[in-house]
Amino acid sequence: MEHTFYLSTKDHSEMIDVTSILENWIAEQQIIDGIIIITSLHTTAGITINENADPDVKTDFLRRLEEVFPWKHQKDLHMEGNTAAHLKTSTVGHAQTLVISNSKLVLGTWQGVYFCEFDGPRKRKFHAKVIRS
Amino acid sequence: MEHTFYLSTKDHSEMIDVTSILENWIAEQQIIDGIIIITSLHTTAGITINENADPDVKTDFLRRLEEVFPWKHQKDLHMEGNTAAHLKTSTVGHAQTLVISNSKLVLGTWQGVYFCEFDGPRKRKFHAKVIRS
Amino acid sequence: MEHTFYLSTKDHSEMIDVTSILENWIAEQQIIDGIIIITSLHTTAGITINENADPDVKTDFLRRLEEVFPWKHQKDLHMEGNTAAHLKTSTVGHAQTLVISNSKLVLGTWQGVYFCEFDGPRKRKFHAKVIRS
Repeated sequence: MEHTFYLSTKDHSEMIDVTSILENWIAEQQIIDGIIIITSLHTTAGITINENADPDVKTDFLRRLEEVFPWKHQKDLHMEGNTAAHLKTSTVGHAQTLVISNSKLVLGTWQGVYFCEFDGPRKRKFHAKVIRS
Repeated sequence: MEHTFYLSTKDHSEMIDVTSILENWIAEQQIIDGIIIITSLHTTAGITINENADPDVKTDFLRRLEEVFPWKHQKDLHMEGNTAAHLKTSTVGHAQTLVISNSKLVLGTWQGVYFCEFDGPRKRKFHAKVIRS
Repeated sequence: MEHTFYLSTKDHSEMIDVTSILENWIAEQQIIDGIIIITSLHTTAGITINENADPDVKTDFLRRLEEVFPWKHQKDLHMEGNTAAHLKTSTVGHAQTLVISNSKLVLGTWQGVYFCEFDGPRKRKFHAKVIRS
């Protein structure tokens, strides 16, 4: 049981909450228990789990990450100029594994699933695979 | 097969070795082979695998992470004031997947499983789910 | 279904593409669908997914990571002197989970699987475990 999801990002750096997209798919597929692996199919966009309440967290998150891995860097060799996006992707992770229990994602109260664009705007895709248990 | 574990952290930043808690549960449940997904149910506490021998590694680890993502930051908007903890959590990861083989976690000699508190002290919980194979 | 792979790293910091090693093993084992968990059995070497095309990405990646977690740090207590390698490992992750679909790893066009040496050169090993679906 697997599916590829498509999305268009709008900003250069952006965290898009995909929790409800995943939950709807899990409901449609009538998955009761198992795990789901959510994979970004890109090297400059990742997946992370973080706060779903205050939108300022996303703003702070992306600004802080940019300070640690600034877009422009005098020593970068990679001609495409997006080395920072590669580092951000490996830092948050290209993929996350979540548990499904009683047809729901096992997440804490404030946790949401985010597709993280680090070199947008672009057309992007991510893959979801379920292992039932 | 799944379980939620509770713990109380004592410091603001702290790495708590939960390897033996997990190993005991795996033994009790008589799990022979499979994988286990260990998930922090919080956005300011994560899970990582790191050295289980010299306690100085934990001290250095937390100090270095604080230098990269300092607690106070002039530009942070998030009113709760714990933006740094959100970044540390996504950096180490909110969850880890480990392999179980012959009733034991597949870990290198120096690897242990750590619950990472980044905004404590607090009452916390993490979830473990096993997929048998 | 699991296997331990051995490799010798040549540099102090190095990203080694192990994608084809994994793909060959998956083909040999005739695995059609499932997931694979690739685990570094070390606390100073990790696994990440990143660009498989321009080798400059690896050079930039390792240089940038060294800037964030410099090898020498006045405050480090850990006598072995490799605290930076512990942080880099937890940042990229000690392990990654990938999906196998139709006998192939589900990876984007530019994604490859890298064993990341952060304290080499050394003899190293990583473990692969498949859960069929």
